[in-house]
Amino acid sequence: MSADELRQARAYLLRVAEPPAAALVAFVAECGPVEAAARVRAGDCPAGVLKATEARRGYDLVAQDFDRAAVAGARLVVPEDDEWPAWPLLALDLAARRGVAEAVPPLALWVAGDVGLGSAADRAVAVVGARAASAYGEHHAAEFAYGLAGRRVPVFSGAAYGIDGAAHRGALAAEGVTVAVLGCAVDGGYPAGHVGLLKRIVGSGGAVVSEYPPGTPPARHRFLVRNRLIAALTEGTLVVEAGLRSGARNTASTAGALGKVVMALPGPVSSGMSAGCHELIRDARATLVSTVDEVLETVGRFGVAEDSGSGRPKRRTDRLGPEALRAFEALAVRADRSDTEIAAESGLPLRRVRALLPELEIDGFAVRGEGGWRRRKESA
Amino acid sequence: MSADELRQARAYLLRVAEPPAAALVAFVAECGPVEAAARVRAGDCPAGVLKATEARRGYDLVAQDFDRAAVAGARLVVPEDDEWPAWPLLALDLAARRGVAEAVPPLALWVAGDVGLGSAADRAVAVVGARAASAYGEHHAAEFAYGLAGRRVPVFSGAAYGIDGAAHRGALAAEGVTVAVLGCAVDGGYPAGHVGLLKRIVGSGGAVVSEYPPGTPPARHRFLVRNRLIAALTEGTLVVEAGLRSGARNTASTAGALGKVVMALPGPVSSGMSAGCHELIRDARATLVSTVDEVLETVGRFGVAEDSGSGRPKRRTDRLGPEALRAFEALAVRADRSDTEIAAESGLPLRRVRALLPELEIDGFAVRGEGGWRRRKESA
Repeated sequence: MSADELRQARAYLLRVAEPPAAALVAFVAECGPVEAAARVRAGDCPAGVLKATEARRGYDLVAQDFDRAAVAGARLVVPEDDEWPAWPLLALDLAARRGVAEAVPPLALWVAGDVGLGSAADRAVAVVGARAASAYGEHHAAEFAYGLAGRRVPVFSGAAYGIDGAAHRGALAAEGVTVAVLGCAVDGGYPAGHVGLLKRIVGSGGAVVSEYPPGTPPARHRFLVRNRLIAALTEGTLVVEAGLRSGARNTASTAGALGKVVMALPGPVSSGMSAGCHELIRDARATLVSTVDEVLETVGRFGVAEDSGSGRPKRRTDRLGPEALRAFEALAVRADRSDTEIAAESGLPLRRVRALLPELEIDGFAVRGEGGWRRRKESA
Repeated sequence: MSADELRQARAYLLRVAEPPAAALVAFVAECGPVEAAARVRAGDCPAGVLKATEARRGYDLVAQDFDRAAVAGARLVVPEDDEWPAWPLLALDLAARRGVAEAVPPLALWVAGDVGLGSAADRAVAVVGARAASAYGEHHAAEFAYGLAGRRVPVFSGAAYGIDGAAHRGALAAEGVTVAVLGCAVDGGYPAGHVGLLKRIVGSGGAVVSEYPPGTPPARHRFLVRNRLIAALTEGTLVVEAGLRSGARNTASTAGALGKVVMALPGPVSSGMSAGCHELIRDARATLVSTVDEVLETVGRFGVAEDSGSGRPKRRTDRLGPEALRAFEALAVRADRSDTEIAAESGLPLRRVRALLPELEIDGFAVRGEGGWRRRKESA
């Protein structure tokens, strides 16, 4: 099959079922995108896939999608591309195996902007929060994004009014990379007051990303579905301000379920816009951060020297950061240990251990068993 | 021996060594206050006690101490009194056995004010913080103290300028019980600007407390030594505002070492006066609280119905609160379990488990072994 055929198949599949389409994603994993697309089109697929696709499988708007995307300056990035952010998105696969229902990887992503999506997502932080933000929240969202972007940490957010917009603007002010992940198509023009901001993001080395086909309007459920991508594409999520019912808390809990780092900014206890942040911190679902340094320290992995490809390190564990090494050393080879046991053994905070274990799994140092985690034998 | 003789012996012992006088306290525990006082006076005591008392054992100012105390409206409360807060102070004994150096119980306490010290300390919360407080901190110190005192929770603090003073004033505004524990004598007149406040505390059903003999001036080390009493006499300590070097953080860490609940109020990240609170929360050494309800929920024990003395409950565990019962049920009879294992088994947060276990020990439900904690056999 040609690369073109593959890209067209994935464009079709993106349109044919409303994300997150778990059954369709599994079907594609099983028989590949080209065959999956042909069989969906022909109605020759498992019952679950048939049901998820029956309303739209007759649509064939692929050519039109590529035309409209081109007008918006967007391309389709597919898992077969080098720039596909496979590493960060692995968290979705791992969480799905743990039974996290919403943890479904995207079939492909429409991307406007010159930056390679994989490199943007390589060591990124999400800065999110409520639309109805206070001056305190917008100020600090911009300041933290400025500080992160200034240290070459890409800032992801959702382009909404309030905290999201302030975060993108702060990153732009530092001339850093910022990525907006939308709950509508990249040409959705939403929110209307941020069309100019989205153009600036695309024009300044950042990206606007969506799994929705060109022309898809925003919808409430799409913002929630989109939140999983913000959480998955980043190493950690910082909630700057959130009321007790803010959607930003949804992003935070998804990030937690994906084993990513969740952080929250405290604020005045008299501010309802900080109530969601305080609740996250109080319940130990988020780590309190009050400076950019603390964000970097909490996300942790940034301190790890990246594998430059220039020869293998002497021992594989050489590439682990100090905390990851402590967690690794707390694992047994022949027995599963619970995360609380590993925390006790390593002396690391439980929430840090919970963030590190999925990383050690991804990196091939740990395996998950029925009774917890153990060391992967060939990893020493 | 007469009660008078005993009280005089303890007054002498309070003056003869600078608290916390671990060796002297142990000596008193061994041979009783009257014999201990006589032997210290005669120089007939162990080397450690001799050394701690040699500078002052010649002083005999007992009569004068009682006279000066009477002028200040103060009495000496001794462990042999019914009003002695034996229960909360047990935390000091338990912590001392765990090797916490500063966890030395007081030999007696000078108390001005009508309230029984034991009943004031029965279900109290400490509200502490920096002297150099912001308007935000003073406002919330007063609000939280008002809310606690209004629910009949006595508010303990240190009578310093800033947060401490605001806390006492808030409790007074609610016509509740507030207790000032001083780093100088009850007649020390310190801080000068709070002499009127201290009088109001004494005059409105609260108390001013000190382990320092009448006339003792304030000193920096005495504030630190005093902090252990604020921590020990209360169920939990709320740090309202603290810079990174504030003494309030010392009270918080002592409270933590004593197995008491430590709480901190968040604030604007731009405020240096909240930096110490944020650090305590970030490091999981304090639980974030943003309302009075959250303080009560965190301290937890207040939900436990108190033993009215009207007949024994059917099972001893009937008197445990729901969380204490879960922690108790997570204990094994024949094996020691670590606090992290008990947290995992009970599903309670680790910091809650760490607060509950010493309570279960005091209540006779748990014993501490070499490898952790186990259920006390006769407790079921």
